[in-house]
Amino acid sequence: MVGAGQLARMTHQASIPLGVRFRVLTVDHDDSAAQVVRDVRVGDHRDLAVLRDFARDCDVLTFDHEHVPNEHLRALESDGLAMRPGSAALVYAQDKAVMRQRLTEIGVPCPRWRRVSTLSDVADFAEEVGWPVVLKATHGGYDGKGVWIPESDADASALVAEAFSRRLPLLVEERMDFQRELAVLVARSPYGQASVYPVVETVQVDGVCREVVAPAPGIAPGHAAAAQEAALRIAGELGVTGVMAVELFDTKDGVYVNELAMRPHNSGHWTIEGARTSQFEQHLRAVLDLPLGSPLMTAPHVVMVNVLGGDQHDMYAGFLHCMARDPELKIHMYGKPVRPGRKVGHVTAAGDDLDEVRERARHAAAYLRGDIHE
Amino acid sequence: MVGAGQLARMTHQASIPLGVRFRVLTVDHDDSAAQVVRDVRVGDHRDLAVLRDFARDCDVLTFDHEHVPNEHLRALESDGLAMRPGSAALVYAQDKAVMRQRLTEIGVPCPRWRRVSTLSDVADFAEEVGWPVVLKATHGGYDGKGVWIPESDADASALVAEAFSRRLPLLVEERMDFQRELAVLVARSPYGQASVYPVVETVQVDGVCREVVAPAPGIAPGHAAAAQEAALRIAGELGVTGVMAVELFDTKDGVYVNELAMRPHNSGHWTIEGARTSQFEQHLRAVLDLPLGSPLMTAPHVVMVNVLGGDQHDMYAGFLHCMARDPELKIHMYGKPVRPGRKVGHVTAAGDDLDEVRERARHAAAYLRGDIHE
Repeated sequence: MVGAGQLARMTHQASIPLGVRFRVLTVDHDDSAAQVVRDVRVGDHRDLAVLRDFARDCDVLTFDHEHVPNEHLRALESDGLAMRPGSAALVYAQDKAVMRQRLTEIGVPCPRWRRVSTLSDVADFAEEVGWPVVLKATHGGYDGKGVWIPESDADASALVAEAFSRRLPLLVEERMDFQRELAVLVARSPYGQASVYPVVETVQVDGVCREVVAPAPGIAPGHAAAAQEAALRIAGELGVTGVMAVELFDTKDGVYVNELAMRPHNSGHWTIEGARTSQFEQHLRAVLDLPLGSPLMTAPHVVMVNVLGGDQHDMYAGFLHCMARDPELKIHMYGKPVRPGRKVGHVTAAGDDLDEVRERARHAAAYLRGDIHE
Repeated sequence: MVGAGQLARMTHQASIPLGVRFRVLTVDHDDSAAQVVRDVRVGDHRDLAVLRDFARDCDVLTFDHEHVPNEHLRALESDGLAMRPGSAALVYAQDKAVMRQRLTEIGVPCPRWRRVSTLSDVADFAEEVGWPVVLKATHGGYDGKGVWIPESDADASALVAEAFSRRLPLLVEERMDFQRELAVLVARSPYGQASVYPVVETVQVDGVCREVVAPAPGIAPGHAAAAQEAALRIAGELGVTGVMAVELFDTKDGVYVNELAMRPHNSGHWTIEGARTSQFEQHLRAVLDLPLGSPLMTAPHVVMVNVLGGDQHDMYAGFLHCMARDPELKIHMYGKPVRPGRKVGHVTAAGDDLDEVRERARHAAAYLRGDIHE
């Protein structure tokens, strides 16, 4: 697995029972996954020679992020390496304009959008759809980075000029009037088997995922089915292998695709305890072309809340209180130094009563972060 | 953790979400846990200097086996090391005569027993309790090794003479007329909190655990409660810290303690998916003096079947069939080379119908081993 963040860390955890030998490529020898994996290689994932050396004697190469240049992916495939997802699929997770183009072609509902080529493109587009609009870097953004919401022509012009000066390609989208944000995880194997998890509601604050509720409470049944169908359709049409997360807007008119990620995803961390097969095990089964596991839930309601960096720097300090208060709570720490707003862990609670489950998970995350003290 | 077998491997898996740095001491750099842990030290656990070096800068030392000489454990404690379980408790898992003596003193029901000091001791004892009797090495035995069942004076004399020539201390026990074998897992923290799991039935073949059924089917409620009470009592009286497995005989007159193990145990592998808190997470929480997790079951019936080495040497070969047949089955492989009869993995199934759950787990274990081909 290229990358050694928390996704690789949790994938390693899932690789252990499968008896699969797991290797990570990291830029930092003490990165989240590098702390817990035996076979750690340090190197730059933007360097083809490093990638070739890393992948030598691997049966399958997969990824914890989308930052390997697509031309390197294609070169590795030419070498004969089994790469999952492959370069032709991964490009849709690497370039939002290419993704929007393709989803539009296959008829998957998306926000209206346009590439930004000139300073006036945003204003022209906003004239059609109304201010504010959503301006996005077509690649490199995550957790709200690379996304701006200009309210006016002046705002937009300044942002576009700044981006162009950094040679950052942009697209502009209409700002959806949505009721909630959703996500759906799908896994697909090279054999063509696909499996979809229940649709979840994601709660974002400042572009960063705070909370995931499974299944999405109060969603119209037709909208849940539409989201799952869109995910399966995209996985098949784009030839995805491994796990893909599809983020969507739930509106009164239906669901619209926001983003794609072709790897285990924050919106699927709840599956570690909340589903019969975790997204990490499912990703491994998919990329190894094994039959997929059951995506059924283990409890009626599961809530995952991210632990973001706050005032508390010793994450372990909150364990006593949280574990004593709630013997069924599951804490997941990533071994990362605390920085404000950084995702350093998550907690999961499950049960029959959604309000209670949500309170348990929120309480623990807030306590671990240091926001509350009892 | 001293030792790097499958127990350390699965403990590592549980250490990852806790954000705990995990180090193993192994005699073989490619041992089961050594394949998956970042911080692997190679050395002989019977060498005090090696142990001292290994434990340097560790907060807590714990064990995947009972083979560290007790005098070394005491020396490490004198150094000021937090060792859990401690030497005073571990001796009861290292020496069966000391264990029998102590359990007898505190009034826990055990088979009648006696130390063997002379060639005629076994025959004298058998005169009281009847042939056959059970002859045991007081230490070093596991999985049926170090246990013999002489049928006659002649059998016994030959075994005792052979053992004495190897300076192997022995004890003799009555052979219990039992209806089934049981096991119960208890965890206890230095703070004194204790938590007990449901009583399970274990099925042994030639002294090796084949199958564990949770909860023990058809057990008299009084017997289940007696087994749990005995485990809690022993943990408290012996000052155990960490997880302890108590193996018992279920007879028409009640339950009798057979063996103790002060570490995660084969009879608790079902807890990985079958309980809210796995025995491995519970062991870590206990030795780290954290509040214990819930031992409640996640399904009405859970069955674990060991995968023993057979004709099939490529364990991975059976994954396709087993995963396609049963998307809810959980396979655990230990990364160990296959040798006849060796525990190389286990499978777990859970559900509402015991017969069906047992069939699923047995089928998968037999298929992976190569005993059946469809």
